[in-house]
Amino acid sequence: MRKGSHLIDVSVSQRLFTRTPNLREENSLVLRQQLHEYFVSTFDCYESLFETLTCDEAYYEKPISLRHPLIFYFGHTATFFINKLLLARMIDTRINPRFESIFAVGVDEMSWDDLNDAHYQWPTPAEVKNYRDQVRALVIHLIETAPLQLPVEWNNPWWAIIMGIEHERIHLETSSVLIRQHKLTYVKNHPQWKPCRETGQAPANELIKVAAGSVTLGKEKSNPYYGWDNEYGTHSADIPEFQASKFLVSNQEFLEFVEAGGYKNQSHWEEEGLGWVAFTRAQHPTFWLKKNGQWYLRLMTEEIPMPWDWPAEVNYHEAKAFCNWKKAETGLAVRLPTEDEWYRLYAAAGLQNPGPQKANGNIHLDYWASSCPVNKFPQGEFYDVVGNVWQWTETPIYPFAGFDVHTIYDDFTTPTFDERHNLIKGGSWVSCGNESLVESRYAFRRHFFQHAGFRYVVSEELKPVPGSHYETDKLLSEYAEFHYGDEYFGVANFPKALVSLAIETLGDLPKAKALDIGCASGRATFELAKHFDFVTGVDFSARFIGQGVHLSQNETLRYTLVDEGELVQYKSRSLSDLGLEHTKDKVEFFQGDACNLKPQFTGYDFILAANLIDRLYSPAKFLSAIHERLNINGVLMLTSPYTWLTDHTPREDWVGGFKKDGESFTTLDGLKAQLGEHFELIKGPLEVPFVIRETKRKFQHTLSEVTFWKRVK
Amino acid sequence: MRKGSHLIDVSVSQRLFTRTPNLREENSLVLRQQLHEYFVSTFDCYESLFETLTCDEAYYEKPISLRHPLIFYFGHTATFFINKLLLARMIDTRINPRFESIFAVGVDEMSWDDLNDAHYQWPTPAEVKNYRDQVRALVIHLIETAPLQLPVEWNNPWWAIIMGIEHERIHLETSSVLIRQHKLTYVKNHPQWKPCRETGQAPANELIKVAAGSVTLGKEKSNPYYGWDNEYGTHSADIPEFQASKFLVSNQEFLEFVEAGGYKNQSHWEEEGLGWVAFTRAQHPTFWLKKNGQWYLRLMTEEIPMPWDWPAEVNYHEAKAFCNWKKAETGLAVRLPTEDEWYRLYAAAGLQNPGPQKANGNIHLDYWASSCPVNKFPQGEFYDVVGNVWQWTETPIYPFAGFDVHTIYDDFTTPTFDERHNLIKGGSWVSCGNESLVESRYAFRRHFFQHAGFRYVVSEELKPVPGSHYETDKLLSEYAEFHYGDEYFGVANFPKALVSLAIETLGDLPKAKALDIGCASGRATFELAKHFDFVTGVDFSARFIGQGVHLSQNETLRYTLVDEGELVQYKSRSLSDLGLEHTKDKVEFFQGDACNLKPQFTGYDFILAANLIDRLYSPAKFLSAIHERLNINGVLMLTSPYTWLTDHTPREDWVGGFKKDGESFTTLDGLKAQLGEHFELIKGPLEVPFVIRETKRKFQHTLSEVTFWKRVK
Repeated sequence: MRKGSHLIDVSVSQRLFTRTPNLREENSLVLRQQLHEYFVSTFDCYESLFETLTCDEAYYEKPISLRHPLIFYFGHTATFFINKLLLARMIDTRINPRFESIFAVGVDEMSWDDLNDAHYQWPTPAEVKNYRDQVRALVIHLIETAPLQLPVEWNNPWWAIIMGIEHERIHLETSSVLIRQHKLTYVKNHPQWKPCRETGQAPANELIKVAAGSVTLGKEKSNPYYGWDNEYGTHSADIPEFQASKFLVSNQEFLEFVEAGGYKNQSHWEEEGLGWVAFTRAQHPTFWLKKNGQWYLRLMTEEIPMPWDWPAEVNYHEAKAFCNWKKAETGLAVRLPTEDEWYRLYAAAGLQNPGPQKANGNIHLDYWASSCPVNKFPQGEFYDVVGNVWQWTETPIYPFAGFDVHTIYDDFTTPTFDERHNLIKGGSWVSCGNESLVESRYAFRRHFFQHAGFRYVVSEELKPVPGSHYETDKLLSEYAEFHYGDEYFGVANFPKALVSLAIETLGDLPKAKALDIGCASGRATFELAKHFDFVTGVDFSARFIGQGVHLSQNETLRYTLVDEGELVQYKSRSLSDLGLEHTKDKVEFFQGDACNLKPQFTGYDFILAANLIDRLYSPAKFLSAIHERLNINGVLMLTSPYTWLTDHTPREDWVGGFKKDGESFTTLDGLKAQLGEHFELIKGPLEVPFVIRETKRKFQHTLSEVTFWKRVK
Repeated sequence: MRKGSHLIDVSVSQRLFTRTPNLREENSLVLRQQLHEYFVSTFDCYESLFETLTCDEAYYEKPISLRHPLIFYFGHTATFFINKLLLARMIDTRINPRFESIFAVGVDEMSWDDLNDAHYQWPTPAEVKNYRDQVRALVIHLIETAPLQLPVEWNNPWWAIIMGIEHERIHLETSSVLIRQHKLTYVKNHPQWKPCRETGQAPANELIKVAAGSVTLGKEKSNPYYGWDNEYGTHSADIPEFQASKFLVSNQEFLEFVEAGGYKNQSHWEEEGLGWVAFTRAQHPTFWLKKNGQWYLRLMTEEIPMPWDWPAEVNYHEAKAFCNWKKAETGLAVRLPTEDEWYRLYAAAGLQNPGPQKANGNIHLDYWASSCPVNKFPQGEFYDVVGNVWQWTETPIYPFAGFDVHTIYDDFTTPTFDERHNLIKGGSWVSCGNESLVESRYAFRRHFFQHAGFRYVVSEELKPVPGSHYETDKLLSEYAEFHYGDEYFGVANFPKALVSLAIETLGDLPKAKALDIGCASGRATFELAKHFDFVTGVDFSARFIGQGVHLSQNETLRYTLVDEGELVQYKSRSLSDLGLEHTKDKVEFFQGDACNLKPQFTGYDFILAANLIDRLYSPAKFLSAIHERLNINGVLMLTSPYTWLTDHTPREDWVGGFKKDGESFTTLDGLKAQLGEHFELIKGPLEVPFVIRETKRKFQHTLSEVTFWKRVK
């Protein structure tokens, strides 16, 4: 741990690439100095990477078809500074609007805006270098002169500067991968980017026990080191004992899978991996190549005879297929580790974040510009828990409890919360700054290549990953906010207000079972469970009750809310945020039709039908049978704004809201007529308001009429 | 006038049908006694009318195909009591729900619910009589025992009782017309319903001058006599001198038109009348019949040789065609009187409402159950200004300023505010109670038959009638309320709030010309005209600016607001209600396209574009050219909730609300970019809320972002 080490030892720092700075430094001049050094070393290092390119054409030809050419990445990290500094209001004008438009977007393989070359008039590398010099001068000027309020944390405008630097360090790694994917003629060796020359026989792998134990992940906003949004919050888990491979899987070990026909045997591949292998027709790891019957390995700037003791570099699909093959071969429950299990390995290895000394691992460019033998860096009983290559996990990235997006970079992580981006852990030889920290959480699409390999574990358990999906459907998101979100115009939460009113009205009446019919997202179901022994929530829509089910499983409900046009904000709520965590075992949710309810829904002391009757296709079917569900003296609570629409209810089935026999016949008149045989109106009509947020500025503001009916026969 | 005559002279009242009572009677026992007598005499009289029917079949056969059979009317007036007493909460249960369903609706020829006989299981006349007896007993019981709070006025629950009685008196007249239209075999003479036997030579008609003068119509809620909703409010007019016929047009005088081929000469008929005469193939008045070359007249229960000196009974179309023929014959500006002109005649005749003595006119059943000679009742220089038969006017019924519907009978008049129902004035021999009062205002479709004829006038002037149309289009009504109606949730009127903010912001800047672009219903246009010399309102929709134009012509804006389902409330607003009457000459409204504005709209000191930009098909076209309309140093005020929808604005034309070059680009960002060349942002963004009412319980509650931009070049 680097806590307390404010300054990096000078004798070492001359050789080592600058570590991410302690932002809790209390001397602002020292902090300015450290940020200056951190920025310049990063900017320099990134530019030196592009010196491995042989010609201008190397900047314009795409290394892989689905991503931009390298000229984009050369400009992109500079433009990123400008964009974030503008958003943080540290600057108010652009340096080069044209460049800052073309260099802004296009990083992720599948979320590009426009990769059609014809639409880009790329500048020359010299022009981009000139632009980078302008950005460099601007950032240095800011670091030297801009007002600095300590501490620099999440909401400090200076956060944008560190964000820019850490962003460039990410691209240092990803651009090194692109260069490794470029044609050999476009790249050349470079004194700053020398690979490891050590190789030998691969060690035989073995399984080592990791004792059961608990892990606590996530960091606090007060942590002194820069973090990306996905690192904050909390997560803890108890991990049973498992075994893990001592070494990363070496090229040698992976060759067994290749030679056993692993790429051709569909039974080893997961469904998504099968699609990938069929599409790409891959037969071996992507950086392997065979010439004259000999295997070679492509490094950043050269091809070398296969170093069999170096780690195999593969995507998740290949790693997982290897595990499945190994499982079939050995009969053991072989799989990749989870993110949580990796933290158990990290603890077992007794590791710390890189400090001022050379790291005990092939990381942070402390040694080479390539991998190295898998038995080079022992860490406890294991090797390479950190460094050498990233290690794929079974865990799709998900937000920790308390996750929050950063306002000036709201799409850093959120697009990856789709259960299709798996976490990689441990870092590679080029993982620097935040990337090298134990807290970092990077995730990629499972078919993506990085300097990434894997180790395997044997464990019978694989816990489901917490959900990460953000509801984006307009109606479902609006209802999530309506039930669990914020209040607007000072109008109290509607389901909560209804339940308060119900409890007040029920007084001493029995409170064993309650039914929330038309429960939608389920808030009232949970609120009722604070007072009833057991509550059933029923809704016609499985998508709506899905929100209640999700929360009752102790999961966080996540959704986006439209602010303006396509701009959204990210929100999340859990039962514990609302003081409802103790109700989760007292509720159940079912999909059901209020006009044709299944027989088991009966024997209730209380039934709530909130905003339901004017959305039924046959309110009469509901009203004429609902007494059968209630105990005698049980109470039915109806609430509705009586917004009758033929889209929902045929005109002839409206309960009221029309002239009948020449006179105005309100819905309340209709309810009295239809319920009169079995019910007595005991309270109401009252009006309870509710607000549904559509955008940051547009709301539905509605008054729901509430009536209480006691079943008298 | 009957003011002060609390009691009708007993010696006379034994013979005369009870007059409508003074509801300001201060002795409640006296009032109960009078209401008792008024109710019983009316109920009796109505039942005696049905004694003219010869058999049960006479109750079931329809006199005319588009209206219910008489059995309906026999039950209807009793059911009406029950329905209104329920609404007024004087009773809380029905007497006979089945009867009260079938007898409720079906009075007006064209607003029937269901006239298919197969859908009605009519009861027998005896059953209905039995039902009537129950209703009679109930009403008498109420009059004798129900709590009575004086005075009995508009909002008093007892108003329902008088309403029921006056309603029955209306049906006394309309049922007498149906009986007159029934087959002769179904009717018989009756001692209470004896026609006049006087007839002789018709007098030659002549024109008499009526001096110019003013009229004031409408009554106050404090008026001591029952009135229908349409009688209340105020209306006054200056009437130039005109001439009017001394007598109603007699059968003799009308014969000239018939014999001149008037029914066959299309040039005499108005367009609507032409349709009627073509459809019905009428060749003479409906109650005339020719047998063996002789003309006869059908009365209620018999046919008599044509009494040529009795008034011709016709519908409006026939009366109007007669006038047009007469105009062509004489070259004089012959037409029917207006409602206002009839009041000049009434004043000239020196008449009063019927008092305890026999009326000076064939009205209120004081004489006969039929018309009488047109020269029987002199009234000043004229005859029959009141009584004998109703007189058609040129005036479609319209609401007086201050018109309000009665909550327990909101469809008494409102359905007739369609400019297709013309007022009839003066009453007939069977017009009793409210019908006989000078203040009463009855209107019928122009092709309808009543005991109605006409007198003609000669006048060069025919003022347009005040509009009576109620806007029922959902969007237009909502906007009428949004701009001119009530406030909800305590949110101030939006256009007014915007103008206040504008005036505060403009300070001492020039205020000669202002433009309200996207003015919708125009409220801000008027509000701006309180401060500017002249204001132009422009909107894409002619229907919207129609509301502003209407108000600027000193007309009242009338609209219905949805309460619940199909139930509506009726609202009206005029400029004077809002303190804006003095602005009407300082505004103009034009239809125009904000994205392609005509050249004349220029030279403004101030332009307001409220809730406009996110509804334009090309905001850029508007934003890039709007500076050309403003003077240098002029101010542009933009307000919008930025609710971008592809329905209005293609995605590529949104001003903001999307990610641009990877970063959130708000509409405000877009406005700055698009307006920056000519404008400086001088104030804002501010948020101003507005509420649009959709139903009694459902509202849009929105925040509009406001920015002020000064044109700097």
